[in-house]
Amino acid sequence: MLRIPKPSYRFVRSISTKYFPNEPSAPVFTTSSVPGPKSKQINQELGEVYDNGATYFVADYFQSIGNYISDADGNKLLDVYCQISSIPLGYNNPKLIEAAKSDEMVSAIVNRPALACFPQSNYKDILEQGLLAAAPPGMTKIWTSLSGSDANETAYKAAFMYQHAKLRKGADFTAEELSSVMDNKTPGASEMVILSFDKGFHGRTFGALATTRSKAIHKLDIPAFPWPKAPFPQLKYPLEEFAAENRQEEQRCLDELENIIVNSPKQIAAAIVEPVQSEGGDNHASSFFFQGLRDITAKHGILFIVDEVQTGVGATGKFWAHEHWNLTSPPDMVTFSKKFQAAGFYFGNGDLQPKQPFRQFNTWCGDPTKAILAKAIYQEIKASDLVTRTATVGNYLYQGLQTVVSKSQGKFLNLRGENYGTFIAWDCCSVEVRAKVLQACKDLGLNMGACGDLSIRLRPTLLFEKKHADVFLNILEEAVGKV
Amino acid sequence: MLRIPKPSYRFVRSISTKYFPNEPSAPVFTTSSVPGPKSKQINQELGEVYDNGATYFVADYFQSIGNYISDADGNKLLDVYCQISSIPLGYNNPKLIEAAKSDEMVSAIVNRPALACFPQSNYKDILEQGLLAAAPPGMTKIWTSLSGSDANETAYKAAFMYQHAKLRKGADFTAEELSSVMDNKTPGASEMVILSFDKGFHGRTFGALATTRSKAIHKLDIPAFPWPKAPFPQLKYPLEEFAAENRQEEQRCLDELENIIVNSPKQIAAAIVEPVQSEGGDNHASSFFFQGLRDITAKHGILFIVDEVQTGVGATGKFWAHEHWNLTSPPDMVTFSKKFQAAGFYFGNGDLQPKQPFRQFNTWCGDPTKAILAKAIYQEIKASDLVTRTATVGNYLYQGLQTVVSKSQGKFLNLRGENYGTFIAWDCCSVEVRAKVLQACKDLGLNMGACGDLSIRLRPTLLFEKKHADVFLNILEEAVGKV
Repeated sequence: MLRIPKPSYRFVRSISTKYFPNEPSAPVFTTSSVPGPKSKQINQELGEVYDNGATYFVADYFQSIGNYISDADGNKLLDVYCQISSIPLGYNNPKLIEAAKSDEMVSAIVNRPALACFPQSNYKDILEQGLLAAAPPGMTKIWTSLSGSDANETAYKAAFMYQHAKLRKGADFTAEELSSVMDNKTPGASEMVILSFDKGFHGRTFGALATTRSKAIHKLDIPAFPWPKAPFPQLKYPLEEFAAENRQEEQRCLDELENIIVNSPKQIAAAIVEPVQSEGGDNHASSFFFQGLRDITAKHGILFIVDEVQTGVGATGKFWAHEHWNLTSPPDMVTFSKKFQAAGFYFGNGDLQPKQPFRQFNTWCGDPTKAILAKAIYQEIKASDLVTRTATVGNYLYQGLQTVVSKSQGKFLNLRGENYGTFIAWDCCSVEVRAKVLQACKDLGLNMGACGDLSIRLRPTLLFEKKHADVFLNILEEAVGKV
Repeated sequence: MLRIPKPSYRFVRSISTKYFPNEPSAPVFTTSSVPGPKSKQINQELGEVYDNGATYFVADYFQSIGNYISDADGNKLLDVYCQISSIPLGYNNPKLIEAAKSDEMVSAIVNRPALACFPQSNYKDILEQGLLAAAPPGMTKIWTSLSGSDANETAYKAAFMYQHAKLRKGADFTAEELSSVMDNKTPGASEMVILSFDKGFHGRTFGALATTRSKAIHKLDIPAFPWPKAPFPQLKYPLEEFAAENRQEEQRCLDELENIIVNSPKQIAAAIVEPVQSEGGDNHASSFFFQGLRDITAKHGILFIVDEVQTGVGATGKFWAHEHWNLTSPPDMVTFSKKFQAAGFYFGNGDLQPKQPFRQFNTWCGDPTKAILAKAIYQEIKASDLVTRTATVGNYLYQGLQTVVSKSQGKFLNLRGENYGTFIAWDCCSVEVRAKVLQACKDLGLNMGACGDLSIRLRPTLLFEKKHADVFLNILEEAVGKV
């Protein structure tokens, strides 16, 4: 059994029991391995009609509770992956069930509006009590969409339209623009570009995918725009040991970024970056780097988009991860999805809204059911102070992981995410070790996720507490010992 | 008052009263014009935080019922636009409310899965009792997504991956592919193209938008792939008068299509077409043309995608509009969204599913709440035989419109959609007349939608019946008389 280091601060009393009086105190097993036979059987049948090549296991969501996900066989696993960073308040959270059963939700389900044409009379209220109440500092406006990819693409569209409007200086579209665009040609179609960073992930639709640089398998055989990428710092750990080298590496990346900008054959409409590159391997950078990004983009008239699809909504110990940076001026747009269920982007500058209607437009323009859910999520996060709690438990978890890593005989390394809530990750010494650890953990009742080439990332709920951290640390230490 | 032509067949008894005993029998007015002052006020406030440039009026969905939409002032308008062709079974349909309140729905709302990683144990059942039960002939598999744009883009991705896999003949990715794709360059990034048709509309995300050719305002200032477009027939009306010319026009378009294919500098992975080009102006073509498309694409190894986002789910008097064509072999993929709320594409050929996992992939891979709603929608359509009913009332509506058009003194022309259910449209003699007619109709309690340069399109619910058609025809005749 792992000796958990004595925490150096007093813990706030558990609040997860308020939500989940029947949450198990440890994993529950019905089969010796996960996935069990029933899960396998169901998945095989599903494969007859649906692409099931990426299935880890088939879940029974009716039996899942709090931080524990049930598989179809009835095994209950502590879940620190949470539908790829998406379950904010645990499975079957009673407050969200209440929201799901509300008249407001039922109406939004059966009377789904084309929001930009026939908005519902309470849409502003829904936004103001939820998504907008949660808006990052300096951001007063919102565009709602359907997914992280969609959020990023609409942000890109806003950027392109904004930059062209600036160049046009109030003039109307030219006849040549109006005709050439119908053939997908310039000048009507834009030659401008979006800059993203090596190892970044911004989604899978064609525009988003052109900025995604995580892995080849995400991109192969799909047409891509000729858009530039800049290097993202590769930091060395532990940070305190490599402070000088890391600063140098971040400066190198900033210099190279400015070099790319100055030499770009095409105007760069916007640059997009994740606070922590998640799919790409949970790569962090410091506030120094991000302040540099903000300054360089501002200097060159490039819009600065922060993709908080994965980092947003509390997991990093701030509501928005970019609040860690203390930027001297806010980003131009911040995109979100996942834990908020609703997706979209925030902005402050009204000029990011095109002057003509039907340009930033589509049939749904989001989904009020998700905005209603986001409202409930936000209100619960505030009421129970879950961001502070996540920061606190994250520190505890990080300390425990330092011990596990130090005892792992080199199998684990590069622990990262200190003072970053539960948004923690580390590397394994090889792909094989990682696969074995993940499977051993599953068999011991812990569901974790991989990212990048060698990393394991933690993405628990905002109701993940000390007691869950203890279960987690014990299983992880047992698993790594077995590998 | 309009004299409705005596219908030549006996009408089936109304079924909408079963669903909506309290549906008004005519529009209800609380203000002299629509939008009323409250709607305007709310919309102005919404504009402070949200792009409201395209708002027609603010709706009160709690007060909307059946075929009548309520605005924020309490006016109740007969709705033949239906959230841009999306409300399948009327506002506040009790059977959909039942589905919305079900345990299955509540669970899917609060425990939203990453479907391709942790599918819920009953997902296959949900699909088989809904979306898959409704699948077009010859299509046994499904990919679920979030919107029409997303449905089309995932179909394009499937097409690109399929065509490259064919060229690769089972070989693995090359080192050059794996590295070049990370720079968005060939050979890893594809140079293949998707062919679409002049005036087609396939969505707003970057890949979808590159195939959209409806209007410049949809595309301006957004980067576009250099993908080809082919001409879509411009038919003359009434069809029986121009049979020979229209056949010639369709043959011209087919010839030109084949010419484009043969001379294309890049391999065409797929061609996409709408059965009726909706945003582009409700442009129809005959079965002859679509059979030609199927034959030419098959001959050249090009996948044939039918975009039924707007035409699907019964409105044309068949469940899928392409069933009107009696094709000798089914399309390769059929995309859907809107009336089904759920979105995605159907296919029959298992090779359209990439061999490697995580290629056709994203976090959500659709939304089970929408699949559950689609199940309820499908089951109600079947139970109440709503496709047949829509075909019947569509004929009645069409006959009535022939009278309105003939009496319009040239203000209306080119009526189209005979034997195509309620999927009917006509042109106005000018943009000004169209705008005036649409406003006059709103003020008389009828909500209609425009499309293309001069057209008005009808997109009522599947519970739109003779009594609604009578209200509609009377208002329309009164409105056109006023203009």
